[in-house]
Amino acid sequence: MHDLRPVGYVIGLLAAVLGATMAVPMAVDLAYDNGHWQAFLQSAIITIIIGAALAIACASGVGPRLTLQQSFLLATGVWVALPLFGALPFLFGATGARPVDAVFEAMSGLTTTGATVFVGLDDFPEGLLFWRSMLQWFGGVGIIVVAMVFLPELKVGGMQIFRSEGFDTGGKVLPRAAQIAAQIMAIYVALTLACGLAYASVGMTGFEAANHAMTTLATGGFSTSDASFGLFQGAPEYVSSVFMIIASLPFVRYIQLVAGSTRPLLRDPQVRGFGWTLAALVAVIWSYRVFVRGDGLEHAFREALFNVTSIITGTGYASVDYQLWGHFPIALFFFIGLIGGCAGSTCCSVKIFRYQLLIAAVEAQIRRIHSPNGVFTPHYNGQPVTEEVLSSVMAFLGLFVVTLGLVAVALGMTGLDFITSVSGAATAIANIGPGLGEIIGPAGNFAAINDVAKWILTVTMLLGRLELLVVLVLFLPRFWRI
Amino acid sequence: MHDLRPVGYVIGLLAAVLGATMAVPMAVDLAYDNGHWQAFLQSAIITIIIGAALAIACASGVGPRLTLQQSFLLATGVWVALPLFGALPFLFGATGARPVDAVFEAMSGLTTTGATVFVGLDDFPEGLLFWRSMLQWFGGVGIIVVAMVFLPELKVGGMQIFRSEGFDTGGKVLPRAAQIAAQIMAIYVALTLACGLAYASVGMTGFEAANHAMTTLATGGFSTSDASFGLFQGAPEYVSSVFMIIASLPFVRYIQLVAGSTRPLLRDPQVRGFGWTLAALVAVIWSYRVFVRGDGLEHAFREALFNVTSIITGTGYASVDYQLWGHFPIALFFFIGLIGGCAGSTCCSVKIFRYQLLIAAVEAQIRRIHSPNGVFTPHYNGQPVTEEVLSSVMAFLGLFVVTLGLVAVALGMTGLDFITSVSGAATAIANIGPGLGEIIGPAGNFAAINDVAKWILTVTMLLGRLELLVVLVLFLPRFWRI
Ligand SMILES: [K+]
Ligand SMILES: [K+]
Repeated sequence: MHDLRPVGYVIGLLAAVLGATMAVPMAVDLAYDNGHWQAFLQSAIITIIIGAALAIACASGVGPRLTLQQSFLLATGVWVALPLFGALPFLFGATGARPVDAVFEAMSGLTTTGATVFVGLDDFPEGLLFWRSMLQWFGGVGIIVVAMVFLPELKVGGMQIFRSEGFDTGGKVLPRAAQIAAQIMAIYVALTLACGLAYASVGMTGFEAANHAMTTLATGGFSTSDASFGLFQGAPEYVSSVFMIIASLPFVRYIQLVAGSTRPLLRDPQVRGFGWTLAALVAVIWSYRVFVRGDGLEHAFREALFNVTSIITGTGYASVDYQLWGHFPIALFFFIGLIGGCAGSTCCSVKIFRYQLLIAAVEAQIRRIHSPNGVFTPHYNGQPVTEEVLSSVMAFLGLFVVTLGLVAVALGMTGLDFITSVSGAATAIANIGPGLGEIIGPAGNFAAINDVAKWILTVTMLLGRLELLVVLVLFLPRFWRI
Repeated sequence: MHDLRPVGYVIGLLAAVLGATMAVPMAVDLAYDNGHWQAFLQSAIITIIIGAALAIACASGVGPRLTLQQSFLLATGVWVALPLFGALPFLFGATGARPVDAVFEAMSGLTTTGATVFVGLDDFPEGLLFWRSMLQWFGGVGIIVVAMVFLPELKVGGMQIFRSEGFDTGGKVLPRAAQIAAQIMAIYVALTLACGLAYASVGMTGFEAANHAMTTLATGGFSTSDASFGLFQGAPEYVSSVFMIIASLPFVRYIQLVAGSTRPLLRDPQVRGFGWTLAALVAVIWSYRVFVRGDGLEHAFREALFNVTSIITGTGYASVDYQLWGHFPIALFFFIGLIGGCAGSTCCSVKIFRYQLLIAAVEAQIRRIHSPNGVFTPHYNGQPVTEEVLSSVMAFLGLFVVTLGLVAVALGMTGLDFITSVSGAATAIANIGPGLGEIIGPAGNFAAINDVAKWILTVTMLLGRLELLVVLVLFLPRFWRI
């Protein structure tokens, strides 16, 4: 029998902390004097009591290390339990949301997906908007820590190539994981403050700046308006683009940067690959807008930069409905959402390094074709890639595509049309936010789809955020054998 | 400098043979006395003269073996040159087709895709319909030979796991490749005859039976009517399903079967995987039709069996517009087209064995997660899978998905809508035939799309049929270095 107490202890503790943070939106509501603060008080009491009770009940079983099974269960358990507690303010609050909508929204928040089932955000109580942003902000930093501390050890999806990264800050003695996590959180906070100040300096109100700073750094994409970034055209789009890009690079590089070393950041193959890919895509859309559609240079550049950055990083803000730019951008935006940012950032989706490993595999394959008797190993960042990593990446990509297909089919089964099913599956598994088509496209939202589809998407967001395998292994009887 | 003469010699020879076979549709037109036979005479003269001239000019350079570069160039060259010659009857004949349409149709034939740009097939001269069917029939047997003799040696897309297969007929002494090829052709002819007789026995005219027998064994999907299999509902759907399945299994197993050994066929993991997948999908669609849509048991079973078999094998016949069955089957049919049949058959697409290798990789990954210090190698058919095969399969899958995405985006750029772009890219790269949506769906065809899109699709069919890498390596300077 596996001892589940260490898992319950951490989850309980995190839930209690989440409950305590509900004081922030409560304070926001009190400050705005909108009479909505009780929803957070109620939610906080329930969350803290249950969380603390769970932690206390499990405290006796806590040891110095987690087993493998406990680690997997913990990662999944956190992203199952916290959305349930995080949903309470939506249930009790002004939205009076049904459970399916409340859980969808909280899961969309904590997985940094940013798909929303709520309409009329502009008239929401400020605390509730703030809570949505906070959920994304927590989810963003949470995933960096999981990606750096857990996934490499768990050998999931090829992340083991970063195993030494988290603990290798420029040749120095190995700091402890907790120290790294603390440094990352400090950087995350600092960048969020910088982003908020920048937003405020280009015309956002303090409240808008604070919310969007949190959801930008989390590459989350929740906004304070139904119009998303449509309200903030112009300079805020540039500011946002810069910080979305910053949020998409490996955070461990910023630790090294703070320590005075720019080289690891500039030489990181993920950073370079991401930069070139982004530049190429912006150039393509920009040229298309200017030469084919006849739009103005700056206007076309700004909208290309902002919307491409938003989708490739999986943030999911929309400043315009790019579906109106013609058929070509629609298909392109569908596929660039499947690229994603760098591992070790707040980004989701397939991620740059997996495409780079794919290219390395193709290169090795071509060399092999050319010289059938030679032995060629794919290389990444100058290092040979082991068979284990390759087969992990292959397993991830295969699962990603197959899951995408199964979810799309399941959504179709609930009655959604083709473009909504396929783009809905993609946007949920890659944690992007908006889908395509009239219903869930950048100008729409997820309010109108049926409840079964909402539950399917909720589970898919969880699967995507935890790189699929972390959740799926839990359903294998073999996994639970000692 | 590479000696291109051996390549030119074989292409010239094959072109001359193709020209000679134009006597068959000419004879058909003469027999039906429709006054259309001159188109084939003209085409045959041009094709034979150019082909023979090329062969004679290159004959001096022919040696006993092809180099690697020559092998790749030959495979691609055959599927580029023969469609150009095969297009002549469409140019000169009753269709008076423009070059883009003639080449599209011939490429769709020889790659066994089965997408058509022609409308009014029911009123076509019989010889022209027969020529379309013959192109597919040649393309089908051509690809089996390429897949068995060339691809394993060229180490393309993981096909090297079948390297010994073509030459291993049940433990006996190794026969020569030419002997195997001859046996396969004999089996292909025999199965085509059997299929034609079966079709005739369930109500098709002799002409219809002959045409559909050829396009069934090739899993090609060209029909003699705009309504495709809509004219042949009932018993012909069962006959067709049986022969489409036969055409999707590895043909080398039939050689062993003829030699009296049933075991290799029944124990082949590809055959078993394909059988179970097909059965499961038919059961799903059947249940959906019966329980959700309230259709009759036999009617629902027959249409589910026929249409699922048609799409999973990549044949592409349609007996009904399954887009009218609701949203769920549409999304499902999109994804089952990406499964494909067995390697070593006339099928295209990703193919069963690559999914099986993917599953093996996921299994090894899960074992590795469970026991981080163990060493786990994926297995296929009881044998460990080498890193080389895994990385080849990964390269194939990656290229497949990325090419699909790029082609879809390019099609979108020409002005096609999302569902037409994405399903058009998929149906071309997987050589299925029909796409989805109103324009190119099972009830539509490719006549109405723009010329640029037709050229893009023509190239994509070629890429897909030759497993992508066979064509793509030719564009790498490195490949041409000795
Ligand atoms: K997002
Ligand atoms: K086909």
